[in-house]
Amino acid sequence: MKAAVYHGPGEISVEDRPEPEIEDSTDAVIRVTHTAICGSDLWFYRGEDEPETGSQVGHEPMGIVEEVGEDVRNVEPGDRVFAPFAISCGECEFCRKGLQTACPNGGFWSPEGQHGGAQAEKLRVPQANGTLVRVPDRYAANEDVLEALLPLTDVMGTGHHATVCADVQAGDTAVVIGDGAVGLCAVLAAKRLGAERIIAVGHHEDRLELAEELGATDTVASRGQEAIEEIQALTHGGANHVLECVGAESSLETAAAVVRPGGNIGYVGVPHVEDPSFLQPLFFSNVSFTGGPAPTRAYAEELMEDVLQGTLDPSPIFTKTVDLDSVPEGYEAMDEREAIKTLVKIDE
Amino acid sequence: MKAAVYHGPGEISVEDRPEPEIEDSTDAVIRVTHTAICGSDLWFYRGEDEPETGSQVGHEPMGIVEEVGEDVRNVEPGDRVFAPFAISCGECEFCRKGLQTACPNGGFWSPEGQHGGAQAEKLRVPQANGTLVRVPDRYAANEDVLEALLPLTDVMGTGHHATVCADVQAGDTAVVIGDGAVGLCAVLAAKRLGAERIIAVGHHEDRLELAEELGATDTVASRGQEAIEEIQALTHGGANHVLECVGAESSLETAAAVVRPGGNIGYVGVPHVEDPSFLQPLFFSNVSFTGGPAPTRAYAEELMEDVLQGTLDPSPIFTKTVDLDSVPEGYEAMDEREAIKTLVKIDE
Repeated sequence: MKAAVYHGPGEISVEDRPEPEIEDSTDAVIRVTHTAICGSDLWFYRGEDEPETGSQVGHEPMGIVEEVGEDVRNVEPGDRVFAPFAISCGECEFCRKGLQTACPNGGFWSPEGQHGGAQAEKLRVPQANGTLVRVPDRYAANEDVLEALLPLTDVMGTGHHATVCADVQAGDTAVVIGDGAVGLCAVLAAKRLGAERIIAVGHHEDRLELAEELGATDTVASRGQEAIEEIQALTHGGANHVLECVGAESSLETAAAVVRPGGNIGYVGVPHVEDPSFLQPLFFSNVSFTGGPAPTRAYAEELMEDVLQGTLDPSPIFTKTVDLDSVPEGYEAMDEREAIKTLVKIDE
Repeated sequence: MKAAVYHGPGEISVEDRPEPEIEDSTDAVIRVTHTAICGSDLWFYRGEDEPETGSQVGHEPMGIVEEVGEDVRNVEPGDRVFAPFAISCGECEFCRKGLQTACPNGGFWSPEGQHGGAQAEKLRVPQANGTLVRVPDRYAANEDVLEALLPLTDVMGTGHHATVCADVQAGDTAVVIGDGAVGLCAVLAAKRLGAERIIAVGHHEDRLELAEELGATDTVASRGQEAIEEIQALTHGGANHVLECVGAESSLETAAAVVRPGGNIGYVGVPHVEDPSFLQPLFFSNVSFTGGPAPTRAYAEELMEDVLQGTLDPSPIFTKTVDLDSVPEGYEAMDEREAIKTLVKIDE
């Protein structure tokens, strides 16, 4: 089968790999029909992470079940399914708690490599009972629905997690920092929960325009102190709910500077921090700072329900579509910020 | 009047100062009868903070109201009162929210200096309606009650805040890091809320023995990795509720290493951090990290109720008592860790 493979920073090639097979009784093998390239795939593409050369990549799979192990009960061959970026058993303390990203029986897809990559024609899915989400049959061949569901594998669940961590409720004012795919999904998620005012903060006019289409009531495109002052003016001294969707030191500093005393920061980008001076302002303002890798599996059913009834559609974040052979171009377009997020469609 | 005054690291003297007077219509002047020396007073005593030389010090006042401004309605001359370490108006958004340490009309006692210091015979109390807590008359001359109430000005409220931030509920397991006055009060607070298991972590056998008397079910006296392994063994992989009552980098690292995925760290010591590497473990475990200067005013009534009914008594943290003239000895004893916390009693 064909699969996208990492060969070093900037080097992704599509090449022939052995087809995956059932190895454990809880495995499924799926034929991948849709997948995506993630902002976090740019970490290794840009050399910020260094996975083993030769790793298969991609972690946002959707497809058709081909084969299941003898202990798989929740899906069967022919089902249209998708899987979050984290594998989870569905049975342990953390899965029961809705924190599937902490499942001790799970793990992540590549580039760590132990579970193959989703940018490929086929994929072995461990812990299929817990990991796979089944799309109801009546929607299983509806291309619009499938493209709107695909972001539930990662960025839409992650944007929703930011709202959960920041405790966004109906009527609230939320500040969303970051205009990448996750930030845009966080705008959608805040809108979905009934936030009355959503202030999107970013650096790209086109993405902030999309944020407005998705529900942002205000946008802030300035940087540093100027952005902070603009947000403080818009929120009369700070917002109770700040969604930090980047993870950079500067965006964490902005979050700390615009959160209202006693407020909540939800952060969903891996924090890359050298100077921890944003911590003291958080302390003196009694701010709750909560986040982590989103348990998108926990949110899949409730978000899917909204997608199926037509009240949630994150598919506008896909501004480029490629086939499997063109995955390298998809990386390039995202690296050069020509695409927000790339959809990969594989012939069925 | 006599007052304790800061003259540089290690230099506290008791000297004559002008008596405070009513300056604003919302002021009260109290005759201080009880006050204390705080662990945070050691910051300037040890030269870690450098307040202006000549500042009056102390921030844990209890006394008798002598005089009130014309807009003071909640207390009157003769009332026994105490005041938290933060002044608060009682009327603004943050006071209404129970976050009096963010009151824009408030502030702190010395050593910033603008509001005098509580280690003195008299004290002007701004925003008396919001700031002062009145002790019911029938307990107003009960020395045991007064000494049990005094820690509500700071350390008992702060220990309670740690439980609130760490979301401790009845039946929970809580890890309390730090065996100073705040850590010991956090043990009491967790016990009061019904925590089933309370693991006290510290470095001093005598203080950990006191922690056991106050409600700790387990104690850990080892350091670093050894302490982490001991706590993880006791909690079968980490606790959902960790109360960080120190603020040092090492104790924050311990907190991050022993919190269970999806758990809560409540931190109430000002974080002194240079290396932020404890943040990534918090992220990958989806931990909520919440804390700040305790709004002890918000907790005063509920904690006082327990003290008055005899179900809460933090006074064992006072292991030394001095009069106002001997305040310098009180600092010395705490600096040398001969006393956990020093009570200052002033002749009535």
